[in-house]
Amino acid sequence: MSKGVTKQSEDFAKWYTDVVRQAKLADYGPVKGTMVIRPYGYAIWENFQSILNQMFKDTGHVNAYFPMFIPEHFLKKEAEHVEGFAPEVAVVTHAGGKELEEPLVVRPTSETIIWNMYKKWISSYRDLPLLINQWANVVRWEMRTRLFLRTTEFLWQEGHTAHSTEAEAQDETLKMLDVYKTFAEDYMAMPVITGQKTEAEKFAGAVSTYSIEAMMRDTKALQAGTSHYLGQNFAKAFEVTFQNSDNKEEFVYATSWGVSTRLVGGLIMSHGDDKGLILPPKVAPYQVVIIPIFRKDTKSLVMDKVEGLVGDLKQAGVRVHVDDDEKSSPGFKFNEWEMCGVPMRVEIGPKDIEKGHAVVVIRHSGVKHFIQLDELVQFLADQQEIVQNELFQRALDFREANTHTVDSWDDFKETLETKGGFIKAYWNGSGEVEEKIKNETKATIRCIPFDQPEAKGKCVYTGEESSQQVIFAKAY
Amino acid sequence: MSKGVTKQSEDFAKWYTDVVRQAKLADYGPVKGTMVIRPYGYAIWENFQSILNQMFKDTGHVNAYFPMFIPEHFLKKEAEHVEGFAPEVAVVTHAGGKELEEPLVVRPTSETIIWNMYKKWISSYRDLPLLINQWANVVRWEMRTRLFLRTTEFLWQEGHTAHSTEAEAQDETLKMLDVYKTFAEDYMAMPVITGQKTEAEKFAGAVSTYSIEAMMRDTKALQAGTSHYLGQNFAKAFEVTFQNSDNKEEFVYATSWGVSTRLVGGLIMSHGDDKGLILPPKVAPYQVVIIPIFRKDTKSLVMDKVEGLVGDLKQAGVRVHVDDDEKSSPGFKFNEWEMCGVPMRVEIGPKDIEKGHAVVVIRHSGVKHFIQLDELVQFLADQQEIVQNELFQRALDFREANTHTVDSWDDFKETLETKGGFIKAYWNGSGEVEEKIKNETKATIRCIPFDQPEAKGKCVYTGEESSQQVIFAKAY
Repeated sequence: MSKGVTKQSEDFAKWYTDVVRQAKLADYGPVKGTMVIRPYGYAIWENFQSILNQMFKDTGHVNAYFPMFIPEHFLKKEAEHVEGFAPEVAVVTHAGGKELEEPLVVRPTSETIIWNMYKKWISSYRDLPLLINQWANVVRWEMRTRLFLRTTEFLWQEGHTAHSTEAEAQDETLKMLDVYKTFAEDYMAMPVITGQKTEAEKFAGAVSTYSIEAMMRDTKALQAGTSHYLGQNFAKAFEVTFQNSDNKEEFVYATSWGVSTRLVGGLIMSHGDDKGLILPPKVAPYQVVIIPIFRKDTKSLVMDKVEGLVGDLKQAGVRVHVDDDEKSSPGFKFNEWEMCGVPMRVEIGPKDIEKGHAVVVIRHSGVKHFIQLDELVQFLADQQEIVQNELFQRALDFREANTHTVDSWDDFKETLETKGGFIKAYWNGSGEVEEKIKNETKATIRCIPFDQPEAKGKCVYTGEESSQQVIFAKAY
Repeated sequence: MSKGVTKQSEDFAKWYTDVVRQAKLADYGPVKGTMVIRPYGYAIWENFQSILNQMFKDTGHVNAYFPMFIPEHFLKKEAEHVEGFAPEVAVVTHAGGKELEEPLVVRPTSETIIWNMYKKWISSYRDLPLLINQWANVVRWEMRTRLFLRTTEFLWQEGHTAHSTEAEAQDETLKMLDVYKTFAEDYMAMPVITGQKTEAEKFAGAVSTYSIEAMMRDTKALQAGTSHYLGQNFAKAFEVTFQNSDNKEEFVYATSWGVSTRLVGGLIMSHGDDKGLILPPKVAPYQVVIIPIFRKDTKSLVMDKVEGLVGDLKQAGVRVHVDDDEKSSPGFKFNEWEMCGVPMRVEIGPKDIEKGHAVVVIRHSGVKHFIQLDELVQFLADQQEIVQNELFQRALDFREANTHTVDSWDDFKETLETKGGFIKAYWNGSGEVEEKIKNETKATIRCIPFDQPEAKGKCVYTGEESSQQVIFAKAY
């Protein structure tokens, strides 16, 4: 039963937890930092999966499954990789009642086990490219956890591709980043900035990492997906070579890319308001909820109309749910389904039927429409795209309003403190400066955006001339 | 490159491994007993998943996800459950660089962690039934492993439902068994016998277990899916009660049911022949493979036809693949795709086009059809159902031909030794007798079939009068 959620302006973190719990999206599991994804939350993830899966297939990828247990010594084969991941792995030391000869790491990511297999499968340029994706659970032992955003076990997809040339692998890396951008913007209605990560923030074992970065409604940044160009690092670590068309042995070029259940957290924090969740129609488990209003003597009149409407909506491809629970009042249901973020609600009672209309309320705007019954299905079908676009535009406007360009270090600190949001500033490319800024302000470089101004500028920290403008923000 | 597979009659186990490896269905992972499911094998599993998922949703179930790490003490809460599973679990003792206070078991099945959550979610009869399924990986540390059939980690779905009455839970148990039967027979073309498991063979923690049992082409049995009525065992272990409509506290009634990637092994062994895999159209990644035959000067003529055909077949809902690799000969491709089990092959070259026809070869029968080009799409679309039915009938005939009814112990032993297969015999219901038969012959009671003869008979081992006929067989 909903007690109402904390206001975003009061305590954003508490608002988030309230929404996740009250809308029954997820729950903590018994082991610290683990998450149970409840049916309503999982239905969102299933929608993400089915859309992304199609996008991956359309770009030539196939799915496979690799074991989750990795011999401990595999991790050590790539120096940066082990340094990055060793501190957060979970380790199986006993199985089948015995101590294992070699401990097994539960995959934090699957580069090592996959490249160990690719060694068997690749011998000639004819075997390339290899374009494989897997949907799986992974484990990273985190200290500070938060449902969806950071949990010790999470669900994700990880693409791992092998190529015969550097250029092809780099193209793949950026192509998949673009798939993520399209998914985030066109389906989640979540605008993102694409760019490259700094050396300090790149994936352990990558040559270069690219990401999509989104702004949440508290103006903090969320890294929502990453795509890595791995060069020949893993091919060398696992000795994966191929005979090129000139009959020469060469190391294979690699990419990997992934998005996770973290995206569900991003969806919640991109659109929600003080009433709770707001879901974009394309990924909402239910796009329309119908609340029939009746008493005993009008029940059959109303439910007849509702059943016809449900059939027509399904026919039109709209995901619809009817809440005909007789134990709760309509008012209670209105609040409940608003909290659950269903994009539009239809109220229909005997008086409405008499007048030949129904009431439609749009979740994110609160706008109320009286729609003729014979136009209702078409109206609701049309609203899907309209609501989807409005949510995207609203999120984009919010991001623009909270993005600030600064030139001086004083301005940087003041803006960050008083306004927050994304800060666009020039940076001299030094890791040391990046580290100092992080230590002094907690803001990190989210990415070096592909979209750069033409003019050069001065590094916000050192004043040196610099040709790269970057996005700073406090991040999840 | 295919070297041809071992003949089934020579060495069935080797035939199986050859097919799995050469058709690139799966490979062993680096850790003993683990499996890599390669794209072609995973595509079969994805087809299984999407069909079953729809069947689960049509019967009112929703998906969710529960953590894979279970606190070790959870397993001990249900006495039979821990006895059954403790010997085969993998245990995480270290994580995040530290030894854990309590070791974590990697789920061998999820009853314990799920019922721990159900305790939080269920308080009234209004919360029931709870009909949840999860798709997940599980780990059971097996000594003797075999790709798909028995691997230390495997993929499966596990349904876990909670009910307010015993009758409703028992109905659910049998309803899901029936879903499995329908899936096995109507989609995998694999006839199954449904029945109850004996006390010795039931799930650890269940009141009663039901299974579907299939006969493989070496006449051995494969348990292909199970459905368990758990009574109040887990509700009691995890103190899950609900207030019934009379305001009384009662323990909740439970079921669980699952099928796994083992089904892929069952599919292979139900239909394959000496040339390799045979896939039923409804679950085949490719239902039709087209092999264009051309030289340089006829390539565009042939490929134009082929492209038109592909478009029309896709339009007709047929999953089609074109093998236009110019490095291999048509003959090589015929063998290769027969080995991969594609239900039908289309050969089309310039001479065929001149004559206005194409050659269609049906994989399982080897029958060759010359089909007019303007009738080709319709023919191939119609063949899907025909081939599907023929494969089912063929498997059913094979099972019937290899099922023997015996009355005496001598006959039992001789039949098992000389003919193998399923043996129908009466059994007095004693676990001791079951154990003796198993020790003496390696045959186990696969199930007590729902379908029973009207007459009573004599126990095949003791000669006692008995009212239950059971199926004995050597099993995977």
